[in-house]
Amino acid sequence: MLLGALEAGGTKMVLAIGNENGEILEQTSIPTETPDITLPKIIDYFKDKDIKALGIGSFGPIDLDRNSKTYGYITSTPKLAWVNCDIVGTLTKHLGVPVGFDTDVNGSALGEATWGSTKGVDSSIYITIGTGVGVGVYQNGKLLHGMLHPEAGHVLLSRHPEDSFTGACPYHSNCFEGLAAGPAIEKRWGKKAYELAPDHKAWELEAYYIAQALVGYIFTLSPHRIVLGGGVMHQTHLFPMIREQVITLINGYLKTPLLEDIDNYIVPAALNDDQGIMGCIKLALMELEEK
Amino acid sequence: MLLGALEAGGTKMVLAIGNENGEILEQTSIPTETPDITLPKIIDYFKDKDIKALGIGSFGPIDLDRNSKTYGYITSTPKLAWVNCDIVGTLTKHLGVPVGFDTDVNGSALGEATWGSTKGVDSSIYITIGTGVGVGVYQNGKLLHGMLHPEAGHVLLSRHPEDSFTGACPYHSNCFEGLAAGPAIEKRWGKKAYELAPDHKAWELEAYYIAQALVGYIFTLSPHRIVLGGGVMHQTHLFPMIREQVITLINGYLKTPLLEDIDNYIVPAALNDDQGIMGCIKLALMELEEK
Repeated sequence: MLLGALEAGGTKMVLAIGNENGEILEQTSIPTETPDITLPKIIDYFKDKDIKALGIGSFGPIDLDRNSKTYGYITSTPKLAWVNCDIVGTLTKHLGVPVGFDTDVNGSALGEATWGSTKGVDSSIYITIGTGVGVGVYQNGKLLHGMLHPEAGHVLLSRHPEDSFTGACPYHSNCFEGLAAGPAIEKRWGKKAYELAPDHKAWELEAYYIAQALVGYIFTLSPHRIVLGGGVMHQTHLFPMIREQVITLINGYLKTPLLEDIDNYIVPAALNDDQGIMGCIKLALMELEEK
Repeated sequence: MLLGALEAGGTKMVLAIGNENGEILEQTSIPTETPDITLPKIIDYFKDKDIKALGIGSFGPIDLDRNSKTYGYITSTPKLAWVNCDIVGTLTKHLGVPVGFDTDVNGSALGEATWGSTKGVDSSIYITIGTGVGVGVYQNGKLLHGMLHPEAGHVLLSRHPEDSFTGACPYHSNCFEGLAAGPAIEKRWGKKAYELAPDHKAWELEAYYIAQALVGYIFTLSPHRIVLGGGVMHQTHLFPMIREQVITLINGYLKTPLLEDIDNYIVPAALNDDQGIMGCIKLALMELEEK
């Protein structure tokens, strides 16, 4: 069975055809321009491909409330051309198939939970640390929504005592994304993350901020496993530093067998940066099963 | 139909008989001594009361994993006599009825969601701020568990610039409970919370810490409503201060109709401090329905 997958990002749209085993049969990408230009290109790609359903993992904020009049819309995004864009309605109408819809990071959380490093794990969170920070939350076969959806890249953190950088988020001077995403690293040190040596001071601060955020998620959501992905996490020397800081910050308060095996508790993404698009395939499949 | 309810606290056990409408027909309490002394008293109270099920909201940590060998145990609690106490097994054996089990704060979250200020609301969190800080999480008819259960009273916060108090938590110098629970207020100011005038500096700090924690929960869990209970929250002048700080800290990043109506988003508990024991009645009812 063929399924369509659309990873809708702020700068590019990844389009793919896959099957129910998560195999990607073909994939392409186009730049994200305005809905008037980009949506017809997406429709052109998927029509005549004989897909049974489409799954979309989208930049946001988005409306995931199925009882809402604006369900399936991209809502108050800073990408102004896309504000109040009815992406699900438009694609449903032109493709004539069920369309699943969630945030890009919930999609990645789902991809990893279905075929990756959290396969068979009851609850997990997926954190991408790249040009921004996003968090997807998977719980017993479902993705966490609520009032909106997690925006946990913006949790507020305590500043490292040696960090005088003002933060790169226009909303919060000390949120996770503003202190630790790629642009923050570049603005603070004048170099891109991959240009900084593994023994650079940058990584001590980075591990400190990531660990602080993780400890907040652990105390709040109590996930069975945490997956870290995104461009910054390609610096794999960060993993042991983060794990050590998490243990230091929890300071023995939580005692569980999973935390004792921390190398298997905080893990890298396992799907070669295809977790997002594979998650969209699963979103398509879930939407089909719901019908 | 008669249902038993047991709110198991570190200093006292509240025992009650109620019905499926959440009405409490009789209630008593006994001190929490050792399991050898206290469990037989609990059994004596409930036997011959013709209850169809029992619900327990317990101090913790507790094992909520139904696939675990120690499901229904109080586990690594600082109350040493109760470490590895099989409270569910013991009461099931002696009372011969289904026994529902959750954390005390998840119980309160459930009580409010069933009969109180979050009735009819899809997802909510209940936060008690008293001798400690506890957080219960309700999502679409279920209580959040995961690896363990939320321990979100220990999320780490940024210190107020004018606060030199070292914190009252033995594990974390700057966690929510250590900075803002009753004992922290008393140690910081040398007076109990209810002895401090509404214009005392203490309340500015208190609102600052509570709001910081709430913003973290909002970004992470995206609840539809937040309920604040516990002894400290009897100081009702805190509510407008907390709401104002939450809006300041989010700083316009989240735009939802629910947050715009913040007086109905962050609300007091509505069940006259019976939310915990009423939640236990609902836990009993849910366990009965599961059988």
